[in-house]
Amino acid sequence: MKKHLLLIFSAYLLSISVQAQEALFRAQNIISPEVHADNSVTFRLHAPNAQAVQVTGDFLPTVKMETPRGPMDGPGKANLTKGENGVWEFKTSPLGPELYNYSFIIDGFSTTDPSNPFLIRDVASATNIFIVGGGHADLFKVNDIPHGSVTRRWYDSPGLGMDRRITIYTPPGYENSTEKFPVLYLLHGAGGDEEAWINLGRTAQIMDNLIAQGKAKPMIVVMPNGNVIQDGAPGEGSMNFYKPQFMIPKTMDGTYEGAFGDIIKFVESNYRVKADKANRAIAGLSMGGYHTLHISRFYPNTFDYMGLFSAAIMAREDATGKVYSDFDQTLKTQMDNGYKLYWIAIGKTDFLYEANKEYRAKLDTMKMPYEYVESEGGHTWRNWRVYLTQFAPRLF
Amino acid sequence: MKKHLLLIFSAYLLSISVQAQEALFRAQNIISPEVHADNSVTFRLHAPNAQAVQVTGDFLPTVKMETPRGPMDGPGKANLTKGENGVWEFKTSPLGPELYNYSFIIDGFSTTDPSNPFLIRDVASATNIFIVGGGHADLFKVNDIPHGSVTRRWYDSPGLGMDRRITIYTPPGYENSTEKFPVLYLLHGAGGDEEAWINLGRTAQIMDNLIAQGKAKPMIVVMPNGNVIQDGAPGEGSMNFYKPQFMIPKTMDGTYEGAFGDIIKFVESNYRVKADKANRAIAGLSMGGYHTLHISRFYPNTFDYMGLFSAAIMAREDATGKVYSDFDQTLKTQMDNGYKLYWIAIGKTDFLYEANKEYRAKLDTMKMPYEYVESEGGHTWRNWRVYLTQFAPRLF
Repeated sequence: MKKHLLLIFSAYLLSISVQAQEALFRAQNIISPEVHADNSVTFRLHAPNAQAVQVTGDFLPTVKMETPRGPMDGPGKANLTKGENGVWEFKTSPLGPELYNYSFIIDGFSTTDPSNPFLIRDVASATNIFIVGGGHADLFKVNDIPHGSVTRRWYDSPGLGMDRRITIYTPPGYENSTEKFPVLYLLHGAGGDEEAWINLGRTAQIMDNLIAQGKAKPMIVVMPNGNVIQDGAPGEGSMNFYKPQFMIPKTMDGTYEGAFGDIIKFVESNYRVKADKANRAIAGLSMGGYHTLHISRFYPNTFDYMGLFSAAIMAREDATGKVYSDFDQTLKTQMDNGYKLYWIAIGKTDFLYEANKEYRAKLDTMKMPYEYVESEGGHTWRNWRVYLTQFAPRLF
Repeated sequence: MKKHLLLIFSAYLLSISVQAQEALFRAQNIISPEVHADNSVTFRLHAPNAQAVQVTGDFLPTVKMETPRGPMDGPGKANLTKGENGVWEFKTSPLGPELYNYSFIIDGFSTTDPSNPFLIRDVASATNIFIVGGGHADLFKVNDIPHGSVTRRWYDSPGLGMDRRITIYTPPGYENSTEKFPVLYLLHGAGGDEEAWINLGRTAQIMDNLIAQGKAKPMIVVMPNGNVIQDGAPGEGSMNFYKPQFMIPKTMDGTYEGAFGDIIKFVESNYRVKADKANRAIAGLSMGGYHTLHISRFYPNTFDYMGLFSAAIMAREDATGKVYSDFDQTLKTQMDNGYKLYWIAIGKTDFLYEANKEYRAKLDTMKMPYEYVESEGGHTWRNWRVYLTQFAPRLF
């Protein structure tokens, strides 16, 4: 047994770029992005052959773009400057607290940052992210506090005729307690799945932080898959790897809402929950807001808390399912049965703004109580994460 | 409530490339990679401005490269051909069953495939993957069979003075049973963490498939984090996002092995396990093989099954911890106490081949029984996944 491991390991590292011994290590020997003490951020890319390198992302102000459909907001871009040894750089001014995403554009080709292995898949794209801390963005960080558990498991859905994957957050201490907990059912939007809220939405980090700060009650958060043709997320279900689609058949035809009882039944027979209306909440973004609207109405005495985040509120040609019948009457029944919170949030520039305005007018006419939050911005995860930080403290 | 959702959603899709409404959707309107019926694979990339596009990955034969340190195996590359509309293509010959990884090289710049959102982080790089099914590769797929659960949770480690993140696989039916299960502790290598085996190693898919086929007994698989300076994987612990390193301080100095009892204690007091030697196995790859060797020896009457996968077997200058004292005597004690399987596997071209040969000679000299499997290839996840499919059926 010779003392040569350090030596061998060092040789291994030196040779790794020319060996096929292990996975392709594309990481460059630079730091990018680098978040500085003043919250400015430097992006770096080693691309000695490139003629032009830009960075684009939601940390840059949007710009007006001319399109065939008229002027629209487009993502901002910034030019990197080529420096020594072919490393391009761009330093931002100090940024506000946020979880941001970005891409590089190299000679017109949009790509990921090889120095940043942190990416989140959104529909069919994996995009780099970084966090500038402070304020609400500290809720997105992992802090040194008690942590809940996140489980990916499978439940039987007789209504859909398959076992289906589901993501469950249980609060800190759940496993070593006899206490029963309330449940938030948290639904994704079109193109999402049971990975969306936990990854893009930072649900575990947000809940851990809110609970540690005493701002939200310990609760179970259930994140199901709303695409009834899938048994699991792309790459995680029996369809295995394929190109994910934004518009998935049968997601808004009533099938999911009609079978939602399978999920409630699974949760209430597998977890220590307070199984009554006062301890059930349901919320969702975009399509998940539409599902929330219809599920809470179709099961009218089941949820005391509803959250419609940028909800896709409108009828559809294919919405012929039983769930959508007697809309006005079942909504009135939901109102008459009573509830504690019907929370509607949307951004001022969201493409669903008018549809939500129309729906609020309908609720006003029938005197159905709700709370309304209007934020800046549009149909973005940046808003949905913040809506969760605002909605969860109102529950239970 | 007008029936205009489809219309609005379609408009949204049309405009998505020029809107900053949502995350940057970089996905291109092409399929890449496409696995054909005959297991040939087509790679495609839309890069109209590129002068040359290559694909590199472990599906290509390695090539000899001249380096300052002499000729070495390097990753193979293949040229894509530019076709209509700036889409480059390369079609392989039929490939054998495997989980492969690959990157594109555009005008010398190594990057991910924007049409494939499936990537796995290995140390500091996120790399695209795809599966060609059949044979052993079907064990890496999600099949329509009963599925276990995968939980990321946190355990208290008094020995390391912190709460630490851990990944736990429980077999199908665990939650709705009173049965007790055996436990496999499965350890990662240098640069890895509690995400390595579940993501790169496809542990959940392999165990689900082996159990469904009756080839492995239902068991709990515990995947801890072997880097004692981390409370969780990069991006998942309280250090949040940073550039991961291959060599992490204090990973092979005995601290981890000395505190491993915290993990066993956590598992045995939180899961329905058969808490005896006959129902405990421990295995690991590379550094995890080194940890396996030392943990199983340091706790000499604890495990009946040991798996050393491409183990980093050798002493180190910084290996001064109590764990490493009395090496020969404690190894002999482990032998004298008896065990059912001491399984050593390594690839013929692994840079640790000689060190393993030397260790086997030592075991031969002291007549310590072991089984030895020599595979093709080197220090790769491709081997470690296969070793798991061979080792797990031998347990319990």
